[in-house]
Amino acid sequence: MPNPTACLVVIGNEVLSGRTQDANIRFLAARLGEIGLPLREVRVIPDEREAIVRTVNEMRARFDHVFTTGGIGPTHDDITAEAVAAAFGVPWEPHPEAWALLEAYFRPGEFNAARQRMATMPRGATLIANPVSVAPGFTIGNVHVFAGVPRIMQGMFESLAPSLAGGKAVVSQAVHAHGLPEGRLAAGLAAVQEAHPEVEIGSYPYWRAGGHGVSIVAKGIDGAAVEAAIDAVAALMRALGAEPVPGEPAA
Amino acid sequence: MPNPTACLVVIGNEVLSGRTQDANIRFLAARLGEIGLPLREVRVIPDEREAIVRTVNEMRARFDHVFTTGGIGPTHDDITAEAVAAAFGVPWEPHPEAWALLEAYFRPGEFNAARQRMATMPRGATLIANPVSVAPGFTIGNVHVFAGVPRIMQGMFESLAPSLAGGKAVVSQAVHAHGLPEGRLAAGLAAVQEAHPEVEIGSYPYWRAGGHGVSIVAKGIDGAAVEAAIDAVAALMRALGAEPVPGEPAA
Repeated sequence: MPNPTACLVVIGNEVLSGRTQDANIRFLAARLGEIGLPLREVRVIPDEREAIVRTVNEMRARFDHVFTTGGIGPTHDDITAEAVAAAFGVPWEPHPEAWALLEAYFRPGEFNAARQRMATMPRGATLIANPVSVAPGFTIGNVHVFAGVPRIMQGMFESLAPSLAGGKAVVSQAVHAHGLPEGRLAAGLAAVQEAHPEVEIGSYPYWRAGGHGVSIVAKGIDGAAVEAAIDAVAALMRALGAEPVPGEPAA
Repeated sequence: MPNPTACLVVIGNEVLSGRTQDANIRFLAARLGEIGLPLREVRVIPDEREAIVRTVNEMRARFDHVFTTGGIGPTHDDITAEAVAAAFGVPWEPHPEAWALLEAYFRPGEFNAARQRMATMPRGATLIANPVSVAPGFTIGNVHVFAGVPRIMQGMFESLAPSLAGGKAVVSQAVHAHGLPEGRLAAGLAAVQEAHPEVEIGSYPYWRAGGHGVSIVAKGIDGAAVEAAIDAVAALMRALGAEPVPGEPAA
């Protein structure tokens, strides 16, 4: 049975403007691979209601799980929860459990209207615990809504992860060869890929202070097949007069 | 007149697997803002023909310019040029100018079939110079195809940039206040946003070793309007008993 699939929707003007270097894509990509729920697509969209509604509805129909990051704070540009409610066609309303959490967290009188937004969610949402700063994320249907701040997003992901039914972990092996141009390896590599169709083989040339070369990465859910593919690549490198070195080159 | 719009399609299994931290989104986001061609959406998709064809066709209809990164090398997983040709419904064939460039670059006998792929492009493509490693990118219609390696991608972008008709540069100003929780600023900030609809105001809480606070960023193509919005935010911070500090907090 093939693994279930995941996609990520990054809701963030700050990423689209270049203000912020996104750090959530790589974290989720790696962790989702580990739990057998490989990331198949990412979209970065603006903090705009219509864009969020359209994207969430398209993605939740196409993928088993949709993760969103960003836009669940207390300010005017935090519109993710309201837009996700609109996408599901349900009311956006106070969530009793989230409300109680936040009311208890703030000092009397400080749980103001802006902060109450953080306890206002699509009807039917279940909370995702935030071990860093209390205000929770939530799940509705197959859509999981996280904060955008990486530390908080990571905490929310780890809160949720045990309840995600993934498939087999994606395993990965690499081999590289200094001084071997990608263009000399290419024909043989295509043959190795053809002989190992259940493994995904990627070729990544590198240029480093210590020299250039090519790094080959094989990925799949069958560890023996991945190893066999990497062995075939190493043999090919040797046949071309290069020395295969396990793993990726040092950065 | 509103600025023309841009989107980016990152073609890269290595980003979706978490192997690689993408560095192209932020570079292009920042440079496109500077030349008045703001980035409105990013998609990260796998190295799969059908995904590339579908995404390129959707995006070139929705945006004035589409940029792609990745998948134009010599190996079996480099299928971007072929897929873009399919998206445009034109043949994928040797490009005489690219062919001549690469044939001259390699030693006799080394311009093999794999490397010839790098000179094979959609019919009607015009080349984008690669100042780093010769093999060019290309433009067809409103789609600009770059390499994925950041140094090469950046070189290709700078080769192309003078020919891109952008609008007015997006300017940005920021102000931050230590010790001010986002949730106290939120109501007043919403009023400032409402009073300055032509400016996009983002609110970014931060937690640093030196303390926490909130950073407000205003962006737009009218510099005076951006400045007026930031002045209003600074006045609001003062009214709440906090000290506004120009710019973003030190990392």
